[in-house]
Amino acid sequence: MSPSSNFTYLGPEGTFTEAALRTLPEAATRVLVPMVSVPAALDAVRRGEAGAAMVPLENSVEGAVLITLDELATGEPLTIVREVYLPIAFALLVRPGTRLSDIKTVTAHPHAQPQVRKWLAKNLPNAQWEPSASNADGARQVQEGRFDAAFAGEFAAATYGLEPLVTEIHDAENAITRFVLVARPARVSAPTGADKTSLVFQLPDDHPGALLELLQEFAVRGVNLTRIESRPTGEGLGRYFFSIDCEGHIGEQRVGEALKGLRRICPDVRFLGSYPRADELPSKPRPGTADADFTRASDWLARCLDGRV
Amino acid sequence: MSPSSNFTYLGPEGTFTEAALRTLPEAATRVLVPMVSVPAALDAVRRGEAGAAMVPLENSVEGAVLITLDELATGEPLTIVREVYLPIAFALLVRPGTRLSDIKTVTAHPHAQPQVRKWLAKNLPNAQWEPSASNADGARQVQEGRFDAAFAGEFAAATYGLEPLVTEIHDAENAITRFVLVARPARVSAPTGADKTSLVFQLPDDHPGALLELLQEFAVRGVNLTRIESRPTGEGLGRYFFSIDCEGHIGEQRVGEALKGLRRICPDVRFLGSYPRADELPSKPRPGTADADFTRASDWLARCLDGRV
Amino acid sequence: MSPSSNFTYLGPEGTFTEAALRTLPEAATRVLVPMVSVPAALDAVRRGEAGAAMVPLENSVEGAVLITLDELATGEPLTIVREVYLPIAFALLVRPGTRLSDIKTVTAHPHAQPQVRKWLAKNLPNAQWEPSASNADGARQVQEGRFDAAFAGEFAAATYGLEPLVTEIHDAENAITRFVLVARPARVSAPTGADKTSLVFQLPDDHPGALLELLQEFAVRGVNLTRIESRPTGEGLGRYFFSIDCEGHIGEQRVGEALKGLRRICPDVRFLGSYPRADELPSKPRPGTADADFTRASDWLARCLDGRV
Amino acid sequence: MSPSSNFTYLGPEGTFTEAALRTLPEAATRVLVPMVSVPAALDAVRRGEAGAAMVPLENSVEGAVLITLDELATGEPLTIVREVYLPIAFALLVRPGTRLSDIKTVTAHPHAQPQVRKWLAKNLPNAQWEPSASNADGARQVQEGRFDAAFAGEFAAATYGLEPLVTEIHDAENAITRFVLVARPARVSAPTGADKTSLVFQLPDDHPGALLELLQEFAVRGVNLTRIESRPTGEGLGRYFFSIDCEGHIGEQRVGEALKGLRRICPDVRFLGSYPRADELPSKPRPGTADADFTRASDWLARCLDGRV
Repeated sequence: MSPSSNFTYLGPEGTFTEAALRTLPEAATRVLVPMVSVPAALDAVRRGEAGAAMVPLENSVEGAVLITLDELATGEPLTIVREVYLPIAFALLVRPGTRLSDIKTVTAHPHAQPQVRKWLAKNLPNAQWEPSASNADGARQVQEGRFDAAFAGEFAAATYGLEPLVTEIHDAENAITRFVLVARPARVSAPTGADKTSLVFQLPDDHPGALLELLQEFAVRGVNLTRIESRPTGEGLGRYFFSIDCEGHIGEQRVGEALKGLRRICPDVRFLGSYPRADELPSKPRPGTADADFTRASDWLARCLDGRV
Repeated sequence: MSPSSNFTYLGPEGTFTEAALRTLPEAATRVLVPMVSVPAALDAVRRGEAGAAMVPLENSVEGAVLITLDELATGEPLTIVREVYLPIAFALLVRPGTRLSDIKTVTAHPHAQPQVRKWLAKNLPNAQWEPSASNADGARQVQEGRFDAAFAGEFAAATYGLEPLVTEIHDAENAITRFVLVARPARVSAPTGADKTSLVFQLPDDHPGALLELLQEFAVRGVNLTRIESRPTGEGLGRYFFSIDCEGHIGEQRVGEALKGLRRICPDVRFLGSYPRADELPSKPRPGTADADFTRASDWLARCLDGRV
Repeated sequence: MSPSSNFTYLGPEGTFTEAALRTLPEAATRVLVPMVSVPAALDAVRRGEAGAAMVPLENSVEGAVLITLDELATGEPLTIVREVYLPIAFALLVRPGTRLSDIKTVTAHPHAQPQVRKWLAKNLPNAQWEPSASNADGARQVQEGRFDAAFAGEFAAATYGLEPLVTEIHDAENAITRFVLVARPARVSAPTGADKTSLVFQLPDDHPGALLELLQEFAVRGVNLTRIESRPTGEGLGRYFFSIDCEGHIGEQRVGEALKGLRRICPDVRFLGSYPRADELPSKPRPGTADADFTRASDWLARCLDGRV
Repeated sequence: MSPSSNFTYLGPEGTFTEAALRTLPEAATRVLVPMVSVPAALDAVRRGEAGAAMVPLENSVEGAVLITLDELATGEPLTIVREVYLPIAFALLVRPGTRLSDIKTVTAHPHAQPQVRKWLAKNLPNAQWEPSASNADGARQVQEGRFDAAFAGEFAAATYGLEPLVTEIHDAENAITRFVLVARPARVSAPTGADKTSLVFQLPDDHPGALLELLQEFAVRGVNLTRIESRPTGEGLGRYFFSIDCEGHIGEQRVGEALKGLRRICPDVRFLGSYPRADELPSKPRPGTADADFTRASDWLARCLDGRV
């Protein structure tokens, strides 16, 4: 099998990321390779050792997964080809026989903490929290006896010989994590009519209204933003880049024109892909911004130039 | 000679419009035909009986020439191919021998009145003002003895056997009238780098921010407006169309894209021509809006679509 | 009677302006004084010889009455206190006994021409058009035998001993003229909930987006514009002032704040009055822009400053 | 001593936060109390057990400190009263006698990792990274012998009986962390002319241009944003609140009016304080937006209302 038939993911085995990856039909025929970190998963794709990588991008409770944002914003370009939404519910995994009252230490990835904080305060107020490199790694450490319990996906129990003592733990109703499948740049697949486009850009310079101007490049063409994150460029406080998602597909004219508008005024724009929306919500272009409207306007302009009016 | 070798103009002979037309080199080889009104001058072009018509469009004291705005906004399409700026100074034309103290009645086109009002109040406070159909027609009526004096261009004196009693009359310093040469739609001539574009459009509907939205179609592409006039559509108070000029040429991408943006959201846009600026002031596109910037952005978009990033 | 009990109007007797003035209850107890021109009617108010003046401001077919716009924009300040909408229909007034086939010359004010042009072309194609200083003055000249017929309001027939040969003449359906009653500045009367505010301002300087910025001062506070006119300042082509109407009353906070915003950035703003709308259409402030919202926000700010949050 | 004479900070002793706190003159006379977490430091202030708390807010390399953002956005209101910028450079702390080649494990707070990653890859490529609850806590664990080395501020060495083996470690030049001193709401101190204001707000609803509208409330009054962060509300993907800083002080009119504008349209705005800028850069209000301009405009409006124009 060629390396590109591998799909990497944020491991170890038993993570929510693996669970997200397994929801994709195309994953069924691939070798799924757990990696120790988001950068490791992505770099394997960059080096051609894997065809794609599944990584978490944001969570409805925790917010953006910063390492993913930052990794996609720099280094060799990668593009998002799919997104997966996964409802997040934790199980409290323990070695068989452990009772709630036996638990002195609990572990999980720091990202899990805000999602189980209230449950913990109510049910294990005296347990000591210890961070682990991932939820699945926490489960492994419980298996090894280092900690008494781990918050992880219920599906991780079998992998580590543990049992779920409590399930469906989630402080927030409807907590969802969004994962993205990332690949090396290639010809973008055709619009489905229900797509999203991701971008990273830096503001042209320090002038006050710059963000407003850039948002207007989208607004004037009726392109809605669904996510906007600012991240430091590392060049000093107050210097940011922005990571955004917008509705629509780069192959649709309103989106293409907005992207070109951005590109003309930003020193740096990175296209992170156009891909089908996980929620399959079709785009409803504002009147006057559908592809047919753009085509009609172009035809009209051609007629004006030719004097055929 | 073919009819299209005729150029009509707002007559009669001796008008400022004729003087403006004669400043154009191309007028030297044409038959110049005075018409009784702006509509008459334009309709001759529409019917193919003239190649072009010279008409006044606006004056720095009086404002827009409404009949010209309205005529260009409706009926068979016409486009502006040239503009001429003419400083306006009046002469007081009288029958030979007339002295200032003899003058009981003065005439001129109503448009002239605001430009000579102060002079009149100071020098002929008791003279009665009578409107005439044009300044030159006023001169004709003086010749016929109906009125004692007419305000008109000094060049009209000879035509009507009058003499200029006073010259260089103009209440406002630097009064200028802008004339346009109008022809049937044809292939638009190439950009010169110092061009203007004229348009007429109706707001999409009654919603409050509509004008703001339309101005943003220009602003977001760095296209400056140099004139904006609202005129009633005739469908009731509060229903307007707008007549505007912007910097740049329809063949320049920032202008073309702004026009297409307008066209996508306005029920009706009429292109009135792209033509060299009379003041020859070169366009200075805002950074990121020159044609080269548009081309670079299009190339970038094509690479994104192809995965060549 | 004190001079201020006089109301002047654009005369002579029998004009539409007089008819508009007579629709106001307060006119019943005043001496109504016809004046020869809009400036004359307004100057009588400025000099204290009249309490108010009724003048035409705009027409749904013809557009703005430029002399009124210009007069209100300059000179001693005046403010609008009332507006009246009058449907415009002309009667063809003739000396008793005149038949349609007898009519060789017709007259009216030039503003009337666009409103009767089609009727004329169809019914009196060969009659010669002569301009008169006002429609009523045209009627007077018919009485004197100088012209055969005059277009004027049917109500003018009696004044000049004429008879209406044809009535209800108007090329456009629903042609309406808007008149305003203008007085010296005084304490503005309280908001009625269905008001309009008029303003004149000059753009801060030549910078391209200036008009856009000014419109945003209104838009950001949800204040709708109902009329916008540009007029030359007289300082050269491309230099304009703007005359606008907006919904609402200077005493309403969203309007007051927008006006202050304008005033902060424009070199020159002239308040032309807040007055009840003739159509009595109540303002529907956008959510968040009613006076109660402003008051709540001010209270909140005060609490923030005080630390009472 | 009263409880409010205590200042809490993100501990344990020896953190950068403590170092930042000690730069403030007012800290010299207080009891400085290390707390185990940002929430613990803030809750002590909320409960009245401390007068203020020093916590990290953002870092030029890492970005926002999310727990601080989230804690300030919810729960009992707190406001920022001071900010401190601290250049961040790490020392590698070891037990006395340890050599570089002895180091098998290194620890630090996860936030430190991105700032020492490159140094680590070059100088200790084989060392295993272990997260600790804080940099100072990592130092404590080195003292206890659990790990071989810790990245922390050089000032932490003495506290834990360690020695700095290497100093001035920072991958990025000029890495800076911004700390804020937070207190219970009280009367805001007067503007210094070089201030910043912090806010948290939620967009009014899901409508596309909402963020743009809110930014315009600032832009139209010339108020510059210096930081904008989006954070999930926890109510589902795509639902965000925004945490921003702007130039200026709530007591300055342009800022106060922008805040009121925000408050009128946002379901929820939380004022997080106006305080002197650490960089002491004076605000330069855009022409027309200084307090004097607001006062002049208010005076003008009052004159308009009174008819004194």
